[in-house]
Amino acid sequence: MVDLAKFGSFHVGGRPVRVAGQPTRRIFFADAVPDFEYDPNGDFVIEQAYVQYFVPSRPVMQTPLVLLHGGGLTGAMWETTPDGRPGWLNHLLAWGFTTYVVDNVERGRAGWCSLDGEWDGQPLIRSGQEAWTLFRFGAEDGYGTRTPFDGQRFPTDSFDAFMRGFVPRWTTTGEASHAAFQDVVRRVGPCVVICHSQGGGFGCRAAEALPDLVRGLVAIEPSGLFDGRPSPVSLGGKPVLLMLGDYTDAYPVWQELAGIIRATAADLEAAGASTTLMAAPDDGLAGHSHMPMMDRGSDRVAARLKDWLLDHKAAGCFD
Amino acid sequence: MVDLAKFGSFHVGGRPVRVAGQPTRRIFFADAVPDFEYDPNGDFVIEQAYVQYFVPSRPVMQTPLVLLHGGGLTGAMWETTPDGRPGWLNHLLAWGFTTYVVDNVERGRAGWCSLDGEWDGQPLIRSGQEAWTLFRFGAEDGYGTRTPFDGQRFPTDSFDAFMRGFVPRWTTTGEASHAAFQDVVRRVGPCVVICHSQGGGFGCRAAEALPDLVRGLVAIEPSGLFDGRPSPVSLGGKPVLLMLGDYTDAYPVWQELAGIIRATAADLEAAGASTTLMAAPDDGLAGHSHMPMMDRGSDRVAARLKDWLLDHKAAGCFD
Repeated sequence: MVDLAKFGSFHVGGRPVRVAGQPTRRIFFADAVPDFEYDPNGDFVIEQAYVQYFVPSRPVMQTPLVLLHGGGLTGAMWETTPDGRPGWLNHLLAWGFTTYVVDNVERGRAGWCSLDGEWDGQPLIRSGQEAWTLFRFGAEDGYGTRTPFDGQRFPTDSFDAFMRGFVPRWTTTGEASHAAFQDVVRRVGPCVVICHSQGGGFGCRAAEALPDLVRGLVAIEPSGLFDGRPSPVSLGGKPVLLMLGDYTDAYPVWQELAGIIRATAADLEAAGASTTLMAAPDDGLAGHSHMPMMDRGSDRVAARLKDWLLDHKAAGCFD
Repeated sequence: MVDLAKFGSFHVGGRPVRVAGQPTRRIFFADAVPDFEYDPNGDFVIEQAYVQYFVPSRPVMQTPLVLLHGGGLTGAMWETTPDGRPGWLNHLLAWGFTTYVVDNVERGRAGWCSLDGEWDGQPLIRSGQEAWTLFRFGAEDGYGTRTPFDGQRFPTDSFDAFMRGFVPRWTTTGEASHAAFQDVVRRVGPCVVICHSQGGGFGCRAAEALPDLVRGLVAIEPSGLFDGRPSPVSLGGKPVLLMLGDYTDAYPVWQELAGIIRATAADLEAAGASTTLMAAPDDGLAGHSHMPMMDRGSDRVAARLKDWLLDHKAAGCFD
């Protein structure tokens, strides 16, 4: 049950592109529509972000949350879980947090650039096999039978439903994604950024670039963090929560990333940030995958996030 | 102010694809992430739809509405207008309609297929110039100065914000889009389909293919309708609302489409469907563009839709 004072959406950021001098071409539509002469020339806007926002009627705090997805996913990842349970977005709104959900550049309702010559490289879409291992659901040879790691909390019986949420991504749109995400933060105003996986890199740079606006930073299973060491100037005193699930020893890439996350927590602490590392096997994250917002027990992890937010509100870190 | 008993989302439909025998390739990520060996082989699901749903606490009718976007747009088109006013989605929920908002195949959070060899043709993105004329905001030579038609209700001073909502579309995914949209309807159950522009074709075929599930059909400015003449068997007795804005004489394509819409209304009436044609200059649609859900006065048009729905509910057409 959610009681909203306001909800809506906007697109923000991006840049205008003018295409000229291209030949027109005849287009056939499969539907019962006349053929038409398609003119590829004209004005376009590319590299914008889409944001859907929800303002509860009785906000538990004034500072809104900004949720940023990981790689190959969209803002839908915060909604209903693959096995049909309420998502973190439901919990956050029920608890009274004003929440902005982002589809960043190239993802979901942000759209993507199909104009020739604008984006380098090819779009990639994640296979089931890659997700199974990269998201630490089970061993590589357990994919075929969907045999998860012992104690795994991800609902692997709904793996196919999860795969339907994958969307293509580029590897070359990083700077455009940084720019659009920072445009989102400027539009929202003072906020707490909650980012996942690849989104960690965008959230961290926004926290450094817009220190007056990013009042707190939550990086869940970040695959990207700071370029180099976190800056003591911008992050001193700012609360940061890093969250890391289980099974990180199972794959070399996660051994490396877990090391970076732990080292970053230590660096942040040294820089004067109020840093919390919630990581398996401690902190109730045992059995959790790369997707704690979808795992069984996702509500308990969300409740830990809520407590962290309200504790830091009570401590005056944000209103 | 919206009081929701439930909200969430799901992906539905689509088909599995297995890629095999492709060479791996080394991928560079711009962010501070190690290079990795990308394996394009594996399992994928393509051609699914995404649906976000909202169930008000005090529903005004049991039968839900299913909203389907037009070409080159996503479900975001039903949300906040480009100039920041509440969208039709806000009005419908405030009035108590249970509402399912679709991103169909290739659009928004449904994702799209970047796998080689699956989809024919090239994705197209609509230019500002094409939207200006095709959506009947003004004369072709008024684009540069953003000079709209006299009496135009589209907020042309927010045209750039509108352009940020455009996403690429294919011309060759029609059958996949029909299939996924019908999967949406099967999942939702008995419903009233409200479709816009290109969505008209998908809505009409769903009404014919799933006569027990599509209890009513609203086609707003449809660019596609029935393949051939509407079937008396499937649509007899079923309420249909066709909506058509102003300035249709300004462009040949709209002269033709307006003729088809009016002829279809007559055919439906003859087939025994309870047909309503709301069209400019009558019915309060004077000054409205191809996007009545975004025009100034969009709330008045939504209120006409509400009245039509509640009248047909009262007449027993749906619960």
